[in-house]
Amino acid sequence: MTKVKLSAIKTTAPEDLDKDEIKAKVKKLAKKIGDLQNKLYAEKKHSLLVVLQGMDASGKDGVSKNVFANCNPSGIDAYSFKKPTDEEFSHDFLWRCHKLAPSKGHTMIFIRSHYEDILIQKVHKWIDDERVSKRMAAINSFEDLLQFDNNTTVLKFYMHISPERQLEKLQERLDLPEKQWKHNPGDWEERKLWSEYMDAYEHAINESHIPWYIVPADQRWYRNYFVAKKVLEVLEEMDPKLPVLEKKED
Amino acid sequence: MTKVKLSAIKTTAPEDLDKDEIKAKVKKLAKKIGDLQNKLYAEKKHSLLVVLQGMDASGKDGVSKNVFANCNPSGIDAYSFKKPTDEEFSHDFLWRCHKLAPSKGHTMIFIRSHYEDILIQKVHKWIDDERVSKRMAAINSFEDLLQFDNNTTVLKFYMHISPERQLEKLQERLDLPEKQWKHNPGDWEERKLWSEYMDAYEHAINESHIPWYIVPADQRWYRNYFVAKKVLEVLEEMDPKLPVLEKKED
Repeated sequence: MTKVKLSAIKTTAPEDLDKDEIKAKVKKLAKKIGDLQNKLYAEKKHSLLVVLQGMDASGKDGVSKNVFANCNPSGIDAYSFKKPTDEEFSHDFLWRCHKLAPSKGHTMIFIRSHYEDILIQKVHKWIDDERVSKRMAAINSFEDLLQFDNNTTVLKFYMHISPERQLEKLQERLDLPEKQWKHNPGDWEERKLWSEYMDAYEHAINESHIPWYIVPADQRWYRNYFVAKKVLEVLEEMDPKLPVLEKKED
Repeated sequence: MTKVKLSAIKTTAPEDLDKDEIKAKVKKLAKKIGDLQNKLYAEKKHSLLVVLQGMDASGKDGVSKNVFANCNPSGIDAYSFKKPTDEEFSHDFLWRCHKLAPSKGHTMIFIRSHYEDILIQKVHKWIDDERVSKRMAAINSFEDLLQFDNNTTVLKFYMHISPERQLEKLQERLDLPEKQWKHNPGDWEERKLWSEYMDAYEHAINESHIPWYIVPADQRWYRNYFVAKKVLEVLEEMDPKLPVLEKKED
């Protein structure tokens, strides 16, 4: 398989697309996704794990909010990973993720994920290369387990944003009152390690058995469209059906 | 590595041992184990997962009760695996086990374990051989993860009892009032599949990366002694120490 080189992939939408048209399409896609997610929930045969990764302000929360806007909340959850708690930290790195794996019928969105443990930890050299490799192997085995033993489709997106566009969005968080709650001084520090993060992402993407989708994420409308299309495609492949009562013969 | 053939391994104690002497030794070993388990708990650097497997009435509960008789309950738990609940069954087979993995400082005893999912399920053909292989690979990866990422020592014992001795013990459960609570009609059914179980155990033991200890289990006193010696040896290797306050220089 050809290795992914992130710097060779565009972070912007194709030029021939119309923003308003695409935004309208996203709304339609979100409705179809909601319909199928509800059937998935009713049928309880498959499950879906959506992993959203990317640099700060790359749009993980935005995707979660827009793409899954029409879902039945009983059958979907989004979990935003933070710094591990003391209890989480006293276990292996997959412990807290495995607990949150979706049950049959459920859709789970990981905003950040088990990949953080080979991204931020690798970039800051909190763990050595040997541990990074071992963790990568454990991740592959974990995702494989979810697929073969619980019919879970693992769908992974890397939000590919340019450092220039990130700067604008971080600045918005300082300037716009409705975005200030998202401001985090740490994001400005992590930004300084951009190329180290790109290396860590490339390693994770290239060593994963289950493929990643690289989402051009500079424009919100295109990013949402890209992810929504893929999610719908996967749900259509699963083809969930509402169970029907078997009629008794007279 | 030579493959284990269970029929070639004795289920009885060596003949030169004195039962009363050994019983006294087990009590001493259990005290030493309790002392080190308390230090493990205080130090919070390592953890210990003890897996006890074996046919019905082979002594899993007895080992748990006798070998860990002097432990600090804050730092130890024993969990007896039953038929999966609906919630457990709607996840992959390792989901319920991973949640119970010991945190740093803790000792966890699995009475039955994740191995049931390639033992009883294989014997009854509830899963096919391909799933057995995939689950075995997942188990190896899971146990490896606990070791490299959380300093967990995984110590696995197979209680090796003869079918004749099992029959006596199952009969005791019908005859002796203090043992009647352990009677389970299903045990008499599973017993009919003895050779299928031996094949499944041999497969699990031979395909495991982390080695199993085969415990001659026909006599309770020797079985307890065998396990206690091994547990103590492993705790001594971990060499846990009570943390001491650093004295401030004046």
